[in-house]
Formats: sequence, structure tokens, C-alpha cells
Amino acid sequence: MGDFAAPRLDRVRVALIGVGARGIGHALQLAAIDGVDVVAICDLHQDLVRRAEQRVLAGGHRPKLYFGDENAWRGMLLEVRPDAVFISTPWHLHAPMGVAAMHSGAHAFIEVPMAVTLQEMWELVDTSEETGRHCMMLENVPYGREELLYLNMVRQGVIGELLHGEAAYIHDLRDQIGHVVRGPGSWRTEHSARRNGNLYPTHGLGPVAQYMNLARGDDTFGRLVSFSSPAKGRGLYARAKFRPDFRWNRETFTAGDMNTSIVKTALGRTILVQWDETTPRPYTRLTLIQGTKGALARYPNRVAIEGVGDYHHWAQDDEWERIVTRYEHPLYKRVGGLAERMGGHGGMDFILRFRIVECLRQGLPLDQNVYEGCAWSAVTPLTEKSVQEDGAPQDFPDFTRGDWRTTRPLAVVA
Amino acid sequence: MGDFAAPRLDRVRVALIGVGARGIGHALQLAAIDGVDVVAICDLHQDLVRRAEQRVLAGGHRPKLYFGDENAWRGMLLEVRPDAVFISTPWHLHAPMGVAAMHSGAHAFIEVPMAVTLQEMWELVDTSEETGRHCMMLENVPYGREELLYLNMVRQGVIGELLHGEAAYIHDLRDQIGHVVRGPGSWRTEHSARRNGNLYPTHGLGPVAQYMNLARGDDTFGRLVSFSSPAKGRGLYARAKFRPDFRWNRETFTAGDMNTSIVKTALGRTILVQWDETTPRPYTRLTLIQGTKGALARYPNRVAIEGVGDYHHWAQDDEWERIVTRYEHPLYKRVGGLAERMGGHGGMDFILRFRIVECLRQGLPLDQNVYEGCAWSAVTPLTEKSVQEDGAPQDFPDFTRGDWRTTRPLAVVA
Repeated sequence: MGDFAAPRLDRVRVALIGVGARGIGHALQLAAIDGVDVVAICDLHQDLVRRAEQRVLAGGHRPKLYFGDENAWRGMLLEVRPDAVFISTPWHLHAPMGVAAMHSGAHAFIEVPMAVTLQEMWELVDTSEETGRHCMMLENVPYGREELLYLNMVRQGVIGELLHGEAAYIHDLRDQIGHVVRGPGSWRTEHSARRNGNLYPTHGLGPVAQYMNLARGDDTFGRLVSFSSPAKGRGLYARAKFRPDFRWNRETFTAGDMNTSIVKTALGRTILVQWDETTPRPYTRLTLIQGTKGALARYPNRVAIEGVGDYHHWAQDDEWERIVTRYEHPLYKRVGGLAERMGGHGGMDFILRFRIVECLRQGLPLDQNVYEGCAWSAVTPLTEKSVQEDGAPQDFPDFTRGDWRTTRPLAVVA
Repeated sequence: MGDFAAPRLDRVRVALIGVGARGIGHALQLAAIDGVDVVAICDLHQDLVRRAEQRVLAGGHRPKLYFGDENAWRGMLLEVRPDAVFISTPWHLHAPMGVAAMHSGAHAFIEVPMAVTLQEMWELVDTSEETGRHCMMLENVPYGREELLYLNMVRQGVIGELLHGEAAYIHDLRDQIGHVVRGPGSWRTEHSARRNGNLYPTHGLGPVAQYMNLARGDDTFGRLVSFSSPAKGRGLYARAKFRPDFRWNRETFTAGDMNTSIVKTALGRTILVQWDETTPRPYTRLTLIQGTKGALARYPNRVAIEGVGDYHHWAQDDEWERIVTRYEHPLYKRVGGLAERMGGHGGMDFILRFRIVECLRQGLPLDQNVYEGCAWSAVTPLTEKSVQEDGAPQDFPDFTRGDWRTTRPLAVVA
């Protein structure tokens, strides 16, 4: 399925499972894209389904509504038979919903991470291969303006041969501990209480993996090592903000505040991958890619390129703007203006959704294949095992079964 | 020897072995410090010895000169019997010279790294313990203004309980490949040709290890994991700059351009340690220390502290200056002005030398003990082994033999 393209769809009949914090954005923007019919909306909570319905009615969509039952989504798949299902539910539901969606004949689009365990990831891979349906993880960050820019620069050879990358998700989300009944924290906090590793690797890793063409011809994932710091932040936060009988004041947290891991690729390149959702630090995804001729990085945006000015100082601000002018990604030139107006993490969310619809309607391969989504997500169970084994290296499974060698690199889409 | 203090010296009779790129600075500045007599200068090269002599004569020093023979330094130790020997020679000479210096009755001050192999480090430890002589690595970076400032802030609890640190030596030194006959590159390049790991860890790691009190009561080094990127940069540079028959165009390089390692401490804290001397990137040592209440970092200087402004943005520039005003290290207040005038990496070199003389003359423990110098330097052979074993964790030897538990943390010296 590396270069798989499904038969083109004239219109895309879309169903959504989960329209809470994340899924509502999919509903809204998909409803605004030409050629999309929002045919079903499903969530456990009726109020969320009604909210989403209200937001798509203006576009002429008349979705069937499903709610109130943990298995309502199964009925939806059978009754509506959508072309594409967008799954934005708690992580443990991603794999079973994705598998069922593909079996019902739909392409599955699954929020990050693809799944929780390696076994679930294999189930998604197997099902995608058996059913001939797409199974794409909804990793939006590769569609950020700067991430696209760097992809274009890397493909043009601006920084030479790639050597090393850095990726992170450092984002203080301690307030999610207060989501007790509903909201992301109500289920995400459970993971931090029971697991220890990098629990959210894909936003940082996705773009860097694309730059290196991992699982696509040039190179692929090899192994990783991982250590977690002590787990202090969540407990301190809960004690400071909530009463002693608050749920998270009666349990301890397992996930180290900062997880630091190193991925080694088949070619021996390295990628630093970090995760920290619980210490007071400014947001960063690092987003560094380094080659024999220079380095590109974010937070702040900056580049150093041999032969372009003085590479002993990062080019920032005005100098960086000149880089943007010269290397803006063609896809961003085409839809960036619209994406910024539509919004969603600065526009990246819209471009993600726009490209999915475009590829499905034109019968093109998607920009991320099922193997990439699984490999990026596999960092979580592999880091958990490495942390548990005090830093022992863990080999990545080859979800492509060797097919990565003949899979085409992601092109600079015009 | 963790808290070891030698009997006070009224005056310090100093000898120097190696007065090339690095040792000349020791000679110059030591000669300017009250209570120091430069009694001997030794180097393989006569011209370097003469140059150093010229630079200390004005201060009234009349050193005996030794040169021209690879063993001249041995004669010097026997004839001069100095109180302290400053060793700034190629790495493989550090341990034998340090051991001999201590056996001659002198305190040994050894340039970074302390030694090349773990066995050599043990020899230095054993000799220091047996002879009752100091053996200190000349790690200057902890005496940088910002590094001292952060030590003071950490000790005052400004960022809470420490969780994670980051340390690096990222410095494009490719031009050293052109040092063929003399100069650092003439012997340093050999290491990059034959070894693969983090070959220069101590400048980045030293300050972070001090913040965490590693090997000093609170915590100590546990284990590390390490991966190196491909080795491309040196070969590309040599081909671009030199003729095909140039020595380094006839050999291949082993050391990966970027080494990335993670140290885990006994308390489970983590330290990212990186090394890259061969890609076009701006200089950085990272110098990040992160706790439950905030983070301090360099390149650029920046802090984020819970309760001090908006920690979702780094405090830089004017805000950072307010931090400096509030938390300036007392040692820097006392000698920072003089240090800046004296120079040497912005003053840190002078403070290092000043403190050594001060401690020797007052009979105080030195700011870095022999175990710290060895542990910081041990990162090199341990990363080499981890790289060789494809990321397998390597345990640090406990050079203190358990004594770290009762060794006092480095105080904020007034």
C-alpha cells in the first residue's frame, strides 16, 4: 500500500466518529470543501453531535446523527456506508474503529496516534492491505507553512546529505488534569498515570521522517533508545490546584515529565525525539533537520546554510523571510492563503483536509501511507519498552514487510 | 578525595607542560595572579617555550625551560618539583603526565578531557588517592557568567526539582583538518579518524552535572545510550579543500558527524549530550536545565519560570537582564569585572585559574574534584562502546567507590 491509490471518487461521502475537541474541526472544514458530503456524525454525546450538525447545515449537508450508545458508530457504518470515516476518539478506540471502517468499505482517517499497541498497528496494516482501503493517520503538522518550506528545501538539496533531525512535543497541558468527566484530559490523563515513554511523538516526528524519506525508498526506521525523567509535574500540579480528595490526588503518575529518545535509521541517521506535556516551558516541536551543508530549525524559525551568508549565525527574521520567498512550497503557494483564512493551527489543518479530499477525488496516493502512520506511532510502545528495560534498544517492526525499498518518496506536490 | 583539601600553600610554584594553543593562556594568566610563581615551562617545541617565557618575564617570573625531547617533562618534574602542574598536551598524554606529576608531589591540573580510556581515569583516581594530591580537570565552562548565574538560580530553587538537562559541543572545527604538522588538528583529527562516539563531552556536560550535584551527595551518573550519525562532513571538507593526495583524502573518517547520547542519573534524571564538530551550524553548548518550576537555557540566553511573567514565552533580552541583576553569582560579582578585562573565552578561563590559585593558597577543596573530571570524561569511552554495540546502555563506573553519597555539593562560592 506504499504508493496505493484508490479509484477516484466524484464526490466524497464523509462520516465523522468523534466530534469533540478535535473532530469538530474536521466536520467544519470538510463541510466547506468542494466535493464533500457530510453524511453522518457520530459521538457518544448528543450535544456534541447537535453542535456539529448545526455547523454543517449551512453548507447544505444533511448528516444522519448517531449518539448515546458506545456502539452507535457500528450501526452508522452499516447503515450509511460512507466513503471516508474521520475518527477523532480516545486513543484506545482508534484501531478497532479504523479496522471496522475499512471492513465496511470506507477509507479510514485516524487522529494521532494511529493506535496504542504494535499489535493494533499491525491489524490496521493487515486490514488496509486486505480491503484495499486507505488508512491514513491525520498528522497535520507536515502541512504547516514552515514544515512544507523545509521539505521543499531538503528536496532541492539545500542542506546536502541529511544526517540528523530533532523532533518534540513540548507543550504544557497540565490543565487537562482538570478534565474529569469529559474532554481530552478525561482519558488522556489515564495514559500518563499508567504508561511511561513518549506518549505523543507524531507531531514532531512526522515532518522529520518525511524529510528523510523514512519508509519510502531512501531509508527507514531502525531502532530507538529511550529514557524518561522522574514523574513530578502532574502530581505537583494536582496538589496545587485541587482538593486532597480529587481523583488525581489519590493516584500516582507513571509517565516521566520529559521523555528523551533517539531513533536510528537504516542508513544510520539519528533523530532526537522528546515529549513533555507537564513542565512550565514554552511550546516547541524543535523541527530541526541537519545535513552536510546546513541546518533548518524552528522555535524560532531559523536556518544556517553553507555559502548563504555566515552560517556561524542563524539566519532569522528578515534573512529568514528571504528564504521563505525563495523556497515557499508550491502547495502552500496554491492553498496557503485560503488555509490561513480557514484556520486550524495556522492553516495546517485545512491543508491536510484539502489534500485528502483532492487525492481521493483525483485517485492519487495520499501524502501519508498506512505504514508511515504506524511507524510514527510505534515510537510510543517502543519507548515504553526501552524505558521499562532501562534504555535497551528496541527495533522498529517493518510494517511495509520490505516494501519501503520500492515505495516512492513524497514528492513536492505542486 | 570528594571534599579533599590540601595543606595551604603560601605561594604556588607552577609548571606548565604544553604551551601551544591552550597552554599559552594558562601561562599568561597564571603569571598575572598574586601568589603564583611560574617556575617551569615545557613543550616539545622550543619556539612555543620561548614565546611563553617572553610572556611571563614581565611579571618577574624566571621559569626553567624544557623542550626538544618527548621526555623533557619528566626531567622537569624531578628537577623543579613544582606545587602544581598544568597539562595542556594531546589527549593521550594527559593520564601519564598527570600520574607522574602527582607522584612527583605536585597537584595535577589537566586540560579536557581528563584522559582517553576508563583505565587511564582509574589510574588518575588511584594516584590522587594514594598521593593525596589534587587531580583536577581544567573545565572552564562552569565559570562562564551565565553558567554561574544558572548555578546560583538552581541552588536557590528557582526552577524547583531538577528533571532534565541538555549539553552539547556543537562547533564547526573542520578547518583543524588542515593542521598537518602542528596544532590541535594534527592530533585531534586522528581521534575522529579512528573513534566513534562523543569525543568532546565535558564543556557542555560540566555545568549541567554541577547543577544536578552529580557525584556529590544528591545524585550521580547512572548509565548512557548513544548513537552517531553517518560520518560525512570531514571527508567532504577534505575533498573540497585539499588535493587528492592530502593525507585525509587517503583515509576515511570513523566519527559520526553528530553524536547524540542520553545520560540517566541514579535519581532517574536525564541529560541529552551532543557532539558535532563537523557540520555547518552555529556554535552551541545548549546548556539547558529544566525543573518542575521552569527551565534555563542558552544560545540564546533565555529562561522560563512559573510565576515570573508568562512562562509560555522565553524571557530574553531585557527580561533576561533583570534575571541577571537579581541572580548574578557572587563569585562573578567579585571577580567578573577583572575576568572580563583579562579575557579568555569571555573571562571564564581567568576565573577558573583564579579559583584554583585561591583554593590552593587558602587550603580549600577545589571546585571540581578528580571524580567529576573522570565521570564527565568517561562519556567518551562509554559512548564509543554504546555506538559500537548499536545503542546498548553502558553503566558509568563509580569512580568515588560509593563516596559520592557523602561528598558535599558545590556551594555558591562567595
